[in-house]
Amino acid sequence: MTKKFNSVLIIGMGLIGSSISRALTEYQVAKNVYGLDENDKVIKKCQELNILIQGETDLSNFDLQFDLVIICTPVSTYEKIFIELNKFISKPTLVTDVGSTKMSTISDFNKINSDQNILFVPSHPIAGLEKSGPEFGFSKLFENRYCILTPFQKDDKALESISDMWKSIGMTIEIMDAERHDRVLAMTSHIPQLIAYSVVGTATELESHMRDEVIKYSAAGFRDFTRLAGSDPIMWRDVYQKNKNAVLEMLGRFSEDLSTYQKAIRNGDLEFLENKFNQSKKIRKEIEDIGQAGSFDPTEKKN
Amino acid sequence: MTKKFNSVLIIGMGLIGSSISRALTEYQVAKNVYGLDENDKVIKKCQELNILIQGETDLSNFDLQFDLVIICTPVSTYEKIFIELNKFISKPTLVTDVGSTKMSTISDFNKINSDQNILFVPSHPIAGLEKSGPEFGFSKLFENRYCILTPFQKDDKALESISDMWKSIGMTIEIMDAERHDRVLAMTSHIPQLIAYSVVGTATELESHMRDEVIKYSAAGFRDFTRLAGSDPIMWRDVYQKNKNAVLEMLGRFSEDLSTYQKAIRNGDLEFLENKFNQSKKIRKEIEDIGQAGSFDPTEKKN
Repeated sequence: MTKKFNSVLIIGMGLIGSSISRALTEYQVAKNVYGLDENDKVIKKCQELNILIQGETDLSNFDLQFDLVIICTPVSTYEKIFIELNKFISKPTLVTDVGSTKMSTISDFNKINSDQNILFVPSHPIAGLEKSGPEFGFSKLFENRYCILTPFQKDDKALESISDMWKSIGMTIEIMDAERHDRVLAMTSHIPQLIAYSVVGTATELESHMRDEVIKYSAAGFRDFTRLAGSDPIMWRDVYQKNKNAVLEMLGRFSEDLSTYQKAIRNGDLEFLENKFNQSKKIRKEIEDIGQAGSFDPTEKKN
Repeated sequence: MTKKFNSVLIIGMGLIGSSISRALTEYQVAKNVYGLDENDKVIKKCQELNILIQGETDLSNFDLQFDLVIICTPVSTYEKIFIELNKFISKPTLVTDVGSTKMSTISDFNKINSDQNILFVPSHPIAGLEKSGPEFGFSKLFENRYCILTPFQKDDKALESISDMWKSIGMTIEIMDAERHDRVLAMTSHIPQLIAYSVVGTATELESHMRDEVIKYSAAGFRDFTRLAGSDPIMWRDVYQKNKNAVLEMLGRFSEDLSTYQKAIRNGDLEFLENKFNQSKKIRKEIEDIGQAGSFDPTEKKN
């Protein structure tokens, strides 16, 4: 049985924060979900959507303590948030987050002199969508997805509570050290995203008639890259700052590999291309087989 | 009103050929659809699916002439197919194709000494899916998608008939010269595909524990690249051979652009990254607004 939290505070009520809010309520993991977001339009939207018991733009406006705090803001804000939480929190409180870079998260946390009331277990739920904003959130976002935890303090009880919380909204838990997390995610997430941005950028810098045609005929493959490029720019900017080393390493490997394809095309080495393409097709098959492929509908949804 | 064809031959009964077969029948554009495929397993599958009136592995097995022939095979096979058709065809016959490279298509056609019975209008329906094989085809594949025609002979009647055929299965026609087509498609299709292959290739060459984790956590973005990489390897190998110049040009532009991102990450130029990411987000919005985005379902389809 999942422990029910009386009061949960979500900091950052965007796509992920609002989805967690919905899920915690729907799966009865939390009795009351509170939201903090520095943007008052976001708080208003959440109130319209009726997904918070109380929403504020300033932490000091809350006159209660929380059982659990979940940070769902871009990673560049963590340092400031940890300082604020350290001032605000006056009883033992579980804290977790959803950020895509974990070494920076731990390093930012260690900068504050925690008064031991903050029991922090870093999390990274591998789930998302190319949209941003609370209006796009939904409770099923986390179902059948992995959540990576990178605990750095010895506190089995805190780890268990945070694990249970994610499990109860549909996730499978994996424990990993932060450095490894950052390298794996550089390859599965940060590099694909950067390359998607770069391809879209290249297209936009073509002569204007070409640019318009690239958009018009994007169903030919380009649109898959723009889907990724639809995500939140600030969130991603921060990821490249905070996971610089792993990103640059993987980017170097990718550039080397791309050169081998370029050379094969120039030299007409069809065998090389065919072999590589066959290998990639197999990887796709593996991802489908383990149920992590999602599904793409090539038709347009009717509004 | 669309002219109804009595007999249509589809050469190559894979995903696209079988989808056309289904669409021509369903929208009553063709009375009888015949299929040719050198792979007898494919023909058997089509017979099981009941989407052909007659399927053969050899053109000479047909004892009739056709009103329309649609070539749906990888572009490396065109030269041979044109020679065979030129021998076989004994009355004026409309011919079109679905290939992704149009300069090579026209050049291959011009190599044969056509006896004037072949009225050839090259086509490229911009529609597809990452699957291959007749079992994955479906009649709605072409709905609301563009079809680019690159006519090179002055024959308005043939052009009109081929246009009407595509329109009647849901497509919007665009006329373009072959060279421009090949440059636009290099950017919207051939480059994204190649980069997807290359990213997937880089991941497979990581140390084996990293490789497994990349697959496991692919929902973080990597899976979007593998979706493209699930397509037919032979078809793509041929594209890079036949559209070499435009692909190498666009690849050069992309590599230059990627270097600027790399440099920005190394130097911590957050403003550059944020601006670029915002621009890309706008492009995504444009593609959604013109109804060419398709829709992605991040949840798994229950079987």
